[in-house]
Amino acid sequence: MAGDETRIPRDPADDATADAAAARREFATRRTGASLRHVGSFSLDPATTPGNVEHFIGAAQVPIGLAGPLLVDGEHAKGEFYVPMATTEGTLVASYNRGMKLVRAAGGVKTTVVDDGMQRAPAFIFDDARAARAFGEWLDVHIEEIRAAAEATTSVGRLERIERYPAGPAVFTRFVFTTGDAAGQNMTGKATAAACAWIHESYPGAAIRRFYLESNMATDKKHSQVNTLRTRGKRVVAEVMLPSALVESQMRTTTREMFGARLISNLGGLMAGSVNNGAHSANAIAAIFIATGQDVANVAESQSALVYGELRENGDYTYSITIPSLIVATYGGGTGLATQRECLELLDCYGPGKVRKLAEIIAATVLCGELSLGAAVVANEWVSSHDRLGRNRP
Amino acid sequence: MAGDETRIPRDPADDATADAAAARREFATRRTGASLRHVGSFSLDPATTPGNVEHFIGAAQVPIGLAGPLLVDGEHAKGEFYVPMATTEGTLVASYNRGMKLVRAAGGVKTTVVDDGMQRAPAFIFDDARAARAFGEWLDVHIEEIRAAAEATTSVGRLERIERYPAGPAVFTRFVFTTGDAAGQNMTGKATAAACAWIHESYPGAAIRRFYLESNMATDKKHSQVNTLRTRGKRVVAEVMLPSALVESQMRTTTREMFGARLISNLGGLMAGSVNNGAHSANAIAAIFIATGQDVANVAESQSALVYGELRENGDYTYSITIPSLIVATYGGGTGLATQRECLELLDCYGPGKVRKLAEIIAATVLCGELSLGAAVVANEWVSSHDRLGRNRP
Amino acid sequence: MAGDETRIPRDPADDATADAAAARREFATRRTGASLRHVGSFSLDPATTPGNVEHFIGAAQVPIGLAGPLLVDGEHAKGEFYVPMATTEGTLVASYNRGMKLVRAAGGVKTTVVDDGMQRAPAFIFDDARAARAFGEWLDVHIEEIRAAAEATTSVGRLERIERYPAGPAVFTRFVFTTGDAAGQNMTGKATAAACAWIHESYPGAAIRRFYLESNMATDKKHSQVNTLRTRGKRVVAEVMLPSALVESQMRTTTREMFGARLISNLGGLMAGSVNNGAHSANAIAAIFIATGQDVANVAESQSALVYGELRENGDYTYSITIPSLIVATYGGGTGLATQRECLELLDCYGPGKVRKLAEIIAATVLCGELSLGAAVVANEWVSSHDRLGRNRP
Amino acid sequence: MAGDETRIPRDPADDATADAAAARREFATRRTGASLRHVGSFSLDPATTPGNVEHFIGAAQVPIGLAGPLLVDGEHAKGEFYVPMATTEGTLVASYNRGMKLVRAAGGVKTTVVDDGMQRAPAFIFDDARAARAFGEWLDVHIEEIRAAAEATTSVGRLERIERYPAGPAVFTRFVFTTGDAAGQNMTGKATAAACAWIHESYPGAAIRRFYLESNMATDKKHSQVNTLRTRGKRVVAEVMLPSALVESQMRTTTREMFGARLISNLGGLMAGSVNNGAHSANAIAAIFIATGQDVANVAESQSALVYGELRENGDYTYSITIPSLIVATYGGGTGLATQRECLELLDCYGPGKVRKLAEIIAATVLCGELSLGAAVVANEWVSSHDRLGRNRP
Repeated sequence: MAGDETRIPRDPADDATADAAAARREFATRRTGASLRHVGSFSLDPATTPGNVEHFIGAAQVPIGLAGPLLVDGEHAKGEFYVPMATTEGTLVASYNRGMKLVRAAGGVKTTVVDDGMQRAPAFIFDDARAARAFGEWLDVHIEEIRAAAEATTSVGRLERIERYPAGPAVFTRFVFTTGDAAGQNMTGKATAAACAWIHESYPGAAIRRFYLESNMATDKKHSQVNTLRTRGKRVVAEVMLPSALVESQMRTTTREMFGARLISNLGGLMAGSVNNGAHSANAIAAIFIATGQDVANVAESQSALVYGELRENGDYTYSITIPSLIVATYGGGTGLATQRECLELLDCYGPGKVRKLAEIIAATVLCGELSLGAAVVANEWVSSHDRLGRNRP
Repeated sequence: MAGDETRIPRDPADDATADAAAARREFATRRTGASLRHVGSFSLDPATTPGNVEHFIGAAQVPIGLAGPLLVDGEHAKGEFYVPMATTEGTLVASYNRGMKLVRAAGGVKTTVVDDGMQRAPAFIFDDARAARAFGEWLDVHIEEIRAAAEATTSVGRLERIERYPAGPAVFTRFVFTTGDAAGQNMTGKATAAACAWIHESYPGAAIRRFYLESNMATDKKHSQVNTLRTRGKRVVAEVMLPSALVESQMRTTTREMFGARLISNLGGLMAGSVNNGAHSANAIAAIFIATGQDVANVAESQSALVYGELRENGDYTYSITIPSLIVATYGGGTGLATQRECLELLDCYGPGKVRKLAEIIAATVLCGELSLGAAVVANEWVSSHDRLGRNRP
Repeated sequence: MAGDETRIPRDPADDATADAAAARREFATRRTGASLRHVGSFSLDPATTPGNVEHFIGAAQVPIGLAGPLLVDGEHAKGEFYVPMATTEGTLVASYNRGMKLVRAAGGVKTTVVDDGMQRAPAFIFDDARAARAFGEWLDVHIEEIRAAAEATTSVGRLERIERYPAGPAVFTRFVFTTGDAAGQNMTGKATAAACAWIHESYPGAAIRRFYLESNMATDKKHSQVNTLRTRGKRVVAEVMLPSALVESQMRTTTREMFGARLISNLGGLMAGSVNNGAHSANAIAAIFIATGQDVANVAESQSALVYGELRENGDYTYSITIPSLIVATYGGGTGLATQRECLELLDCYGPGKVRKLAEIIAATVLCGELSLGAAVVANEWVSSHDRLGRNRP
Repeated sequence: MAGDETRIPRDPADDATADAAAARREFATRRTGASLRHVGSFSLDPATTPGNVEHFIGAAQVPIGLAGPLLVDGEHAKGEFYVPMATTEGTLVASYNRGMKLVRAAGGVKTTVVDDGMQRAPAFIFDDARAARAFGEWLDVHIEEIRAAAEATTSVGRLERIERYPAGPAVFTRFVFTTGDAAGQNMTGKATAAACAWIHESYPGAAIRRFYLESNMATDKKHSQVNTLRTRGKRVVAEVMLPSALVESQMRTTTREMFGARLISNLGGLMAGSVNNGAHSANAIAAIFIATGQDVANVAESQSALVYGELRENGDYTYSITIPSLIVATYGGGTGLATQRECLELLDCYGPGKVRKLAEIIAATVLCGELSLGAAVVANEWVSSHDRLGRNRP
């Protein structure tokens, strides 16, 4: 297709340079008439982009607002943090900030990573279910050899287990790894491929009729019940105890009102078929993911959330949110890019050994936003039934 | 909290200025030691950010890669497009580009917006189910007055209908609007609040015991079955017909192999509890959302996808993907910011009258990525069973 | 296959006679050695079984226990009822009976049918999504003619609306009917077939490439979210207000403890992916369905349940359960058989005009069982932590 | 409440006698006016009913039709079977019979039990997530002692593993057992209670704040995704290979047409939110459950089904259905009652050592019904587009 005028310019020799980017912008402008002046105004070094993007033309500038201080009582994140949130949605940062203020007055958010795992999900298809079952049993017997083959590809990843979900003539599996401070999708992909290569070479039983390295059970970049149940990435819990007096003074509502709204959200979510009985975890997750160089497509699965609250007899509201599939990294991927690294450093979360700290900060931020929006919905009722409507509805 | 050294500086008089942003960066650096030099290197005009972000400190620079030409046979998008994808995940742009090349050779992607709607979901709680039922019937009778109250707040939004989902002593509703070229969450929030104010004032029946403007049935920024069924944003279908010879020449596999993998993905997704039997729609959606100033948190609900393919007897593969809840805008929100507007203009999608065009381009891009990754998974089998493993497994 | 010794005897002329049944039992005994003496001991008249069963050999004797009095404050069921429950599971009747006693002391169960509908779900497949969309719009325009065609087949059924769920090149529909006192699956099947015949004859647009009278969106005899949302059969709410003192005196626990357990059940159900946050609605539904001649396979969809409770400040517990898809009939199907009719008459629910009464009684019974088992689980905690374990755990 | 005229007569001394049943029927007739003559006509011995029912008044007579011969190529069920189906739904037996004829001509159904497990799901709630996590880890360390405590209560049940699903301050668990030939709900309940008693006595860590023996994650008598994924009861696969010529001669359609309908059912089920992409598994399951004394309420969870089919290039259709949570028993529960035992004996499935055989027969029957109804839906299209409508639509 040489000489094709529709083809985006690419010179492999110097593809990741300012000049190559400029050439592509010129090409795009020529083809579409659109100016790309701002897209071309970036401070990041194009030489750092291979591995992050192809056909680089410049950078999106996404406004960052700073929320905080966020007081975290984590095992990895301890103390006050200022959270960079990249967003274009007005009131988002203000709302999280409001929640952070409330939570700080309540003594901070307790955060705990309770599980950790990253998966690839190959499927093996046989002539019939019996052959599939025999294969599944063989996997159990040979787990150590499979593990060795997988872990030979990585200095960090560890194959924890192989889950099996048999159906028809197939064995759907989930290869579950821990992946250190990387999100680990690539690491586990490579390790699982190596494990499957060993399996193909070594399996003495009936022919593996078909094989797919991925079978839609991972479920990478998709929401699913299996990941809510079995964890993908970090499973993080954020908890707070809200005294009723504090809610009344800061949020213009009561813990009893907030808890009442929670019961309706539980029921609405159940009917709606949403595996998220919270309000808007995706807002915090997307904003921090963009700011800190995470894979933003993982918002799809990371948004799942399980809210659990108890209203104590004295009016105290113990509130928790569990994010069962928070996929984060502090090295690799986009974490080393210019602004992304700065934002991670702002949280002291750049580099190895920091990933659970980042997970805790994100979960704590999510919790603040849930309380802020939750209280606003309830107080809005107050406003509408009392002030605006000018009469008292119980 | 005046004089609180932990407080992020804010001077309402000049909050959205380069100076205010610099002051906040200095504050953050002082508190954390992190440099924010790159965060402070932006070309966007801070004066444009109110309405998009609070506590503005600068911008995240997210690398943009250009994919294309994407050949679209839409009702609104017609011809070739170059798609800006903001991402930090290597191979993403290359993979979509590969799919675009395939699809272009196949004659392009046909795209169709088949439904359109935006919701707010208030709940009304009564003393018992009978009072709730009576209220629901009253809503039907007074739909015109409710519509008038809602539409008085907006020149664009139209209240299409009020859906009811009764449970216990509550009526959960979904107020369904069309919202022109805006995504419409704010527009519908405001209109629904006005409608509910009218309802509160006018309802003569038993007391509305409690009311919430949102009840977790919208389900804004959350995945749900109800939105997959009933649409939120645009419901867009992208379709292509792939001749087998083309797949063989370009993708190193066959349509029959691809279709075989599809059957396994269908089954895996069903078991996993994922309302997405495709591969990775979120990758395209997140990347284009970031580039074009969409609300990225909506990836949570927009990622839902329904793939349907048929293998014809001659080997042709007719393939479609339906995105039932694609939430997009071409004005409002982040669409007017510096790089975001440029990227929309690159697609000739900036401003009123363009939103279905943008929806079609995104859906077409999603389709290309599905085919590219889908073929890679299948060809990987080929590689593993033939080249790498050195022997022939059927 | 005449003379095939493996073939079950069938003489069309007298197929539904005691002799024909005896001949088949003899055949079965000859082939398997099993005695069918009890199966052959029935009082029902075989002549009544055509329309209910083919290859009739006798009857299963399912023990019936009587629970009650159940005090119902319904719109159709008013007063005390004795509920026949056909089951083989020990403690089931006793447990429901215990709940009925509690509820009677609390003033009875309030029951309300809040929605009603029966569906068939044809799918129409076209060459592409645009042709499908055009067809969908045509359905709207011609709804009156379609209704006329459908209703020509039935004196009872009414076509309320046609819901559309477009995907790919297909239009999935749900034809929603009211069906009087019949469950209505056959009535709606016939009416929908007639409507579709009219559609096939009348549609002037692009060819309907394929058509299926059922597309798995009804979802007859299967659990689904769509039926939970949109109702299939009767949507019934049962409600009660439990004073705390009553629970303490009768159930050895407190309303606060029961409510605490409810919160955990909500969370467990959400994680488990169950559209039933209650305990065991299927126990009552299956037992009454068997006793009263309902289609027992409909337990699959009727078991869905939505529990909602509030703990008032004074300790009162307002509790409701909504059964969104309760499929019941008081004529047709098995309702006229010997014991089934007697059991319906026991409830004064036999024949036309009684179906909502039956629905209310079933929902009220379900509620009683929820409270009984729910209290037992909580009290069991009490037992285990106090009596059995001999120490006090908070 | 002695002397309460509303109270159902109960004399503990001779509760399970014909006289006691008659007294209760008289009472019911006196209170309601309904005759219970047929209910009182039973051949089962009332003395056998304790353990199966309380307040026994008689028996429901559910017509049984005989379907077969069903040719099964199982590991436990081998050869031809005549299947007793207790139902009141006309055409059900005929339809299954039709499928059995087809399948027999195709060489029979291959059946395989690929997994087996029964659960109870206690939840343990702590002061915070860290205490919950520590408890979870302690469970792992002490699994042998917990197993010993559990298994001390049963000669048959074996505790395979304890799965953990942490959320908020709670650890939701699933105690997974094998239970021999019993369904095992009671066995596992008792064993889990004993295990939890040991846990309560032995756990040295932070106080278990609250505990529930069941937390809605089992999910007994409810449909759920977790049981589809992780098996409850038997996970059984039934498979068949259908030659195209056979389908054409017997079913008036083609394998290609049937496969085409399958693709639409897959998509419809995905949109509907049904974890059953088949047609009507509940029909066979309910009918055989009633006939053979199974716990019919388990239709709720047993109805889940995963259909997977491949159309080979020569037109052969390999078809499988996986029932992931088939809950069956061949001893205990209702299996020893008069007609129930006879029906089990008819299948040579009564008593210990037979439970997998029964599971295989049920799965094989389900498959036959799927093919019969599936073909009917497709042929109906044929009928409607060709015969009835008098013209040819492609």
